[in-house]
Amino acid sequence: MTQPRYTPLVAALPATVPFVGPEAQERARGRPSAARLGANENGFGPSPRAIAAMAAAAGDAWMYGDPEVHDLKAALAAHHGCRPENVVIGEGIDGLLGYLCRLLLEPGDPVVTSEGAYPTFNFHVAGFGGMLHTVPYLGDHEDPQALLAKAIALRPKLMYIANPDNPMASHHPGQTIAEMVTQVPEGTLMVLDEAYVELAPEGTEAPIDADDPRVIRMRTFSKAHGLAGARVGYALGHPDLISAFDKIRNHFGMSRISQAGALAALSDTTWLAYMRRLVDGARETIAQIARDNGLTPLPSATNFVAVDCGQDGAFATAVLEELAAADVFVRKPAVAPQDRCIRISCGPEAEMKALATALPSALKRARDRTSG
Amino acid sequence: MTQPRYTPLVAALPATVPFVGPEAQERARGRPSAARLGANENGFGPSPRAIAAMAAAAGDAWMYGDPEVHDLKAALAAHHGCRPENVVIGEGIDGLLGYLCRLLLEPGDPVVTSEGAYPTFNFHVAGFGGMLHTVPYLGDHEDPQALLAKAIALRPKLMYIANPDNPMASHHPGQTIAEMVTQVPEGTLMVLDEAYVELAPEGTEAPIDADDPRVIRMRTFSKAHGLAGARVGYALGHPDLISAFDKIRNHFGMSRISQAGALAALSDTTWLAYMRRLVDGARETIAQIARDNGLTPLPSATNFVAVDCGQDGAFATAVLEELAAADVFVRKPAVAPQDRCIRISCGPEAEMKALATALPSALKRARDRTSG
Repeated sequence: MTQPRYTPLVAALPATVPFVGPEAQERARGRPSAARLGANENGFGPSPRAIAAMAAAAGDAWMYGDPEVHDLKAALAAHHGCRPENVVIGEGIDGLLGYLCRLLLEPGDPVVTSEGAYPTFNFHVAGFGGMLHTVPYLGDHEDPQALLAKAIALRPKLMYIANPDNPMASHHPGQTIAEMVTQVPEGTLMVLDEAYVELAPEGTEAPIDADDPRVIRMRTFSKAHGLAGARVGYALGHPDLISAFDKIRNHFGMSRISQAGALAALSDTTWLAYMRRLVDGARETIAQIARDNGLTPLPSATNFVAVDCGQDGAFATAVLEELAAADVFVRKPAVAPQDRCIRISCGPEAEMKALATALPSALKRARDRTSG
Repeated sequence: MTQPRYTPLVAALPATVPFVGPEAQERARGRPSAARLGANENGFGPSPRAIAAMAAAAGDAWMYGDPEVHDLKAALAAHHGCRPENVVIGEGIDGLLGYLCRLLLEPGDPVVTSEGAYPTFNFHVAGFGGMLHTVPYLGDHEDPQALLAKAIALRPKLMYIANPDNPMASHHPGQTIAEMVTQVPEGTLMVLDEAYVELAPEGTEAPIDADDPRVIRMRTFSKAHGLAGARVGYALGHPDLISAFDKIRNHFGMSRISQAGALAALSDTTWLAYMRRLVDGARETIAQIARDNGLTPLPSATNFVAVDCGQDGAFATAVLEELAAADVFVRKPAVAPQDRCIRISCGPEAEMKALATALPSALKRARDRTSG
C-alpha cells in the first residue's frame, strides 16, 4: 500500500500538541465552562471599535486580505516609531515563531530557552529539528544571566526570553532586557516575546532599536487588545530579517476581518487605557481570592496571576483538576518548582465570582486526594 | 555585526512572492479598482448567514478559536460522508499546501506538476527545497497521462493536479481523476486541488474514498462560498496523513470568526445553489463581453473565465496592463501558450459593466502598443 514518505524529521516527531483547548475539555465534560480563565485570554473583550470594524468587514470577506497587510503595518510602524520594513505581521505570535524557526533551524541546531517557558516555541523548535537547551528559572523569574551564559557556551541560532514571563507573570525592567541584547553572542538571535508588555508596569518595554539585528521582538493583539481569536501577531526587527519572512510565509494567510479588527483596536487608545485598569482590578481580585483561601498570589505584570498553592506540583494539579470538575478552566506551569502554582487569567466579575465560589471546595477535595 | 544564520535553503530562496495583491496595485495607482476580477474571488459574497455568524462572533474574538476546529470538522465529515479523522482544516489551501510540503519534502526531492499550474504550490515546494518537474498542458487542460508518466519515471513524493484547473478553468470528469489515483506510483502522494469543484459541472467531483492513502484532496471556502478573506481551507485524506498535520501545524492558527463563518456557509445549501446560478450567469456575461470584442472565451468550470486574446503572451499582458490602467483588475496565465489568455473572475453586474466598458479601449491600446 502506498504511504506518503514523510521526512525523517517528521516521522520522528511526537504526536503531542502544545495545548489542549478549553473546548476539548468542555466536550469531554459535556457542558461549557462557568469561567474560562486558563488560556490567558482577555475576557473583558476587544475594543467596541474593533468589534464594529470586524462586523463591518464580515461582508467584505469575499476578498482576500491584503497580503502585505499594508495599513496595519503602517499603523504599527507609526505606533512603535519605526519603519514598515521593521514589521512583519502573522497568524499570531505562534505563527511567527514557526516561521522564525523555519528560517534559521536545521536538525541538530541548538536553541536556548528557560525550562518551563512557552511550550509553543519549543513545539516549533522541535518541529524543525532544533535541540532545546534550557536553564532554570531564578526565583520565578527567567534568568537573563543564565540564558546568556548558556548562549555564550553553545552559540545557538536562537535564544528565547519572554518579558513579562508566561507562565509566572514575573517581569524584568526593560533596561535589563536591553542590556541582555548587548551581550548576545555573535550569530545568536534573541527572541524577545513581549506578548503581555502592554499590561506590565511602566519601564518593562525594553528600549531597543527596531534596526538592531541581534533581536526580534514578538507582539500580539491577543492579550491587552483582547483579540486572541482573530490571530494577529507581529514581530519587530531588522529589515533584512523581516524581509526573510516573505520568502516562506503564507502570504495570503491573514484574515481580512482580523486585519480590520487589529487596526481599529490599535487606534483605540482609550480602550487600552481602560483595559489596563480592568486588568489591574482583576489581578487584585484574583490575589484576594487566593489569599482568602490561604494561597499566595505572585506579583503579576500580565493579565493572569500565578497562584502558589503552597505544596508540590501534584497538589496544584489536583487543585486544577478539581476546579475543572467545577467548570472553572485554569492552567498551570509544567516544571518544578513553578508547577506548585496554578495560572489564572483575569476576567470579568461573573468569572471571578465563579472562581471564588469554586476554589474553597476544590482546595478541600485536592487536599483530601493528596493527603490520602 | 551579528547576523541571523539562515538555513542554506532559506539563504538561497528568491525574494519573489507568488502573487501581488490588488491592494498593492491600488496603492501604486492611488485609487481603488472599479472591478476586482483578478484573484478569483467571489464578488457575489458569502451567504448572509455566514456574514451574520461572523458579525455575531466578532464579540467573541477574545477567545482563541477551537484548535481542533471540532464543529466545522464534524460538519465537513458529515457533508462528505467521511469521518472527522479524514479532515484537517487550515489557513486556506495555501496554508495546507505549505504544511503538506513540510511533512514530505527534503531538499532535492522531486515533485511533479503542470507547467503553469498553481504558483503557490510551487512556492511551497521550493520553500522546502523540492525540485519541480513539470509537464505541459494538453489543449488547455492539465494532462493526466503526462503527469502520471512523469510520476512513474521520477517517483516524486508529491504529484499535483487541480480539477477544475486554475488558471484555465478547464476540467476533467471526476472519473478520469479517480482513475489517475489507481495509477499513482508507490510512494507518490497525489495532491488533488478541488478549490473550484462546487462550481463545476455535475460529475467533476472525483469519486475517491477519503481513506485512500494515495491522494489528498484540497477544498476551500474561498471560492463557491465567497470567504477568501476568512482563510478556511481543508483537506480530505487518510487518517494517518491527516493526523501528521497535527505534528507541525499552528494549532491555534484558525480565526474563531472564520470558523463560525465557514460553519454557517456550509449549512446554507440554498445560498450555494443560488451562487451556482449567479456564477453561471456571470460566466456567460464574461463570455459575451469577450465575443463582443472579438475574443474567444474558453469553457469554464469555475468562477472565472480564461479569455483567449488571439495573439501571444505579450499581447495578453498588454491587454491586462491597459485594463489595470482603466481600474479593472484581472490576471493571466504565466506560461505559453496559455499565456495568450487573460483570466477574469465572475462578479456582480456593476463589475461586469466596468469590464465591458473598459475592454474595447484597452484592446485598442494594446493593439497600438504591440503593433508598433
